[in-house]
Amino acid sequence: MAEDLGLYVPPAARIGDPLQRVGTPSLVLDLDAFEFNIERMAALAAAHGIALRPHAKAHKSTAIAAAQLAAGAVGVCCQKLSEVYPFVRQGIRDIHLSNEVVGADKMAMAAELARHARLSICADHVAQIDALGAAAAQAGTRITVLPEVDIGQGRCGVTGSDELMALVERIARYGSLRFGGLQAYHGGIQHLATWNERRDAALRSAEKAAQHVRHLEARGIACSVVTGGGTGTVEFDVESGVFTEVQPGSYVFMDGHYGSNEWGGTLKLQHSLFIATTVMSTAKHGMAVCDVGLKGVAVDSGLPRVRPGDDDALRYTAANDEHGILRIADGDEDDGDVRDRLGERLMLIPGHCDPTANLYRQYVCYRGDTVEALWDIDASGLSR
Amino acid sequence: MAEDLGLYVPPAARIGDPLQRVGTPSLVLDLDAFEFNIERMAALAAAHGIALRPHAKAHKSTAIAAAQLAAGAVGVCCQKLSEVYPFVRQGIRDIHLSNEVVGADKMAMAAELARHARLSICADHVAQIDALGAAAAQAGTRITVLPEVDIGQGRCGVTGSDELMALVERIARYGSLRFGGLQAYHGGIQHLATWNERRDAALRSAEKAAQHVRHLEARGIACSVVTGGGTGTVEFDVESGVFTEVQPGSYVFMDGHYGSNEWGGTLKLQHSLFIATTVMSTAKHGMAVCDVGLKGVAVDSGLPRVRPGDDDALRYTAANDEHGILRIADGDEDDGDVRDRLGERLMLIPGHCDPTANLYRQYVCYRGDTVEALWDIDASGLSR
Repeated sequence: MAEDLGLYVPPAARIGDPLQRVGTPSLVLDLDAFEFNIERMAALAAAHGIALRPHAKAHKSTAIAAAQLAAGAVGVCCQKLSEVYPFVRQGIRDIHLSNEVVGADKMAMAAELARHARLSICADHVAQIDALGAAAAQAGTRITVLPEVDIGQGRCGVTGSDELMALVERIARYGSLRFGGLQAYHGGIQHLATWNERRDAALRSAEKAAQHVRHLEARGIACSVVTGGGTGTVEFDVESGVFTEVQPGSYVFMDGHYGSNEWGGTLKLQHSLFIATTVMSTAKHGMAVCDVGLKGVAVDSGLPRVRPGDDDALRYTAANDEHGILRIADGDEDDGDVRDRLGERLMLIPGHCDPTANLYRQYVCYRGDTVEALWDIDASGLSR
Repeated sequence: MAEDLGLYVPPAARIGDPLQRVGTPSLVLDLDAFEFNIERMAALAAAHGIALRPHAKAHKSTAIAAAQLAAGAVGVCCQKLSEVYPFVRQGIRDIHLSNEVVGADKMAMAAELARHARLSICADHVAQIDALGAAAAQAGTRITVLPEVDIGQGRCGVTGSDELMALVERIARYGSLRFGGLQAYHGGIQHLATWNERRDAALRSAEKAAQHVRHLEARGIACSVVTGGGTGTVEFDVESGVFTEVQPGSYVFMDGHYGSNEWGGTLKLQHSLFIATTVMSTAKHGMAVCDVGLKGVAVDSGLPRVRPGDDDALRYTAANDEHGILRIADGDEDDGDVRDRLGERLMLIPGHCDPTANLYRQYVCYRGDTVEALWDIDASGLSR
């Protein structure tokens, strides 16, 4: 039996701390850039009369969702049912699960959540609808179901009009379910490098969604909602004439991978999310080792970049479990001797914000050089 | 202000549940295989009279550490100071930090922890030693320091004998520090594919460590501890004559990447760690979509494998944020129609256990077909 030592990890930062004193690794959020991104996306959606339902899987934080709602968002998207809980608990009561769910434990969660929130869920198989219908009926609640149509991604969602009609008709069998429109998302085109490629691909995908809408309309079924789109295509989706609602997530942070896209339109977002890191070993010629590795940054979409201006001689070249390798560029004036960089602090731009944020428990929010807020990543790790 | 709804994510499993009913994704631990691995490694170390100090960064769980200590381990290794806290809090008081630390917040943590545990820390720069010495002196405690020598990895650790002597002499300046021996680890050779390659590389690395030991001995400095080694080389390290202590971590789980090594010796470990997943969409011909993606499994060392025997027609071929793509093998009898697999449950063998375990909050431990225990991953997310 362990005695109670009251021994807990000290906080990485306190409000009012200088940014330079925040313990590393920490996920830090530049509030000026963050607010710019929030306002820019809200203005884009409002200018086109399109509902904005930001994807909370990107940030997993009720504080960020609250900021999005305050700027006019109609609600949020989640990707997993367990992820929905903290948002409902914090008073966000309009949530779209942009995903299919299967299994008895999931049905129990959906029915419980639907008693406290306007919950919509996707389906691409009649068995999912049957299970949701039964669970909602048993719980005495109602769940909105949006069939998912595949507009090019080739992952979830039905492709054919007959398949779609079968789903819509199945929903109608259940008084405990309500047909809510269509989910239509193509993740693969979000990261196309050039603005023209993204525009053309977004238009092709939107046309596929429009074909489904017309097919249903011809059968007397109106789609009050067509929801989809992401940060990479949102500027085209809002003009498509088919989407009534868009679901961008990464726009609040503008991660490294999105940042490497060409942005030709008016939607010029700013990097707001960084990982504060410290050089903790300089024993090797030509390289420095920092304290951010695989457990501090997701590398699936490329390695993090050192924020320009921090130390332009260093380039992040490899991630071990808890170490990041920073190589010194050829021709650097120090000729490879990095020993005086021990303790140097850098900001890293993560390649992919969604799985990176999921590694942390809080955003250390700063303005200028000062910590202004600490926001919980309430849904970190909630992947069920 | 949100009202209190008492709305919390229901547990994925309860003790006594059938394994088939555990909510997915969940990290599940086969206790028979786990106990076999624990006992096998303890027996190997004991047979050679070598201290076993398992690396807790692999599992981040005080329950697993307790099982390791019960089998004879002398203590554990951690990789980050914040990671040390839960282990000390649970009564584990002999902890080696196999890593360098830099920064005022880290010094405060080290000094606080050293008041409650026998804490040793690595160093490869005199400035790290100066900071530790000052912090320990101010706190009125004592920290053991192990200079790290680079035995081939080329990451942290000094290479030359003079550099090593400078560190040893620097430690001696501080009454608040104690020279504890050498840290010598080569991560790069742990995963060499063949047993012969690993043996030869381990012997070369051990010889580098031995050169440092002899150099210090010639100057009258005894190394009471030479600690290092990992799951991939431990069977050679225990026979090296230089290591007094070994630090394997992954052996408790035997992840996919280690499992793909050729194991020619007597140390035949078993896969004990799996991710339970459910097929949640089957709308596409020739593929199924499961509920484990990048937020449920680390893919840095390769994609997860479907456990042989579960559904040998399916192969995990891509990880999206929250979706896993399972392609059906050519020539499968179903001819690509996967619709009847909706709801099918599979076990995945993660490619790399360390960063995968860090994504979860608990191990659902089972024996046979029944959940026997739920173990917290107490140090999940603690990367400071």
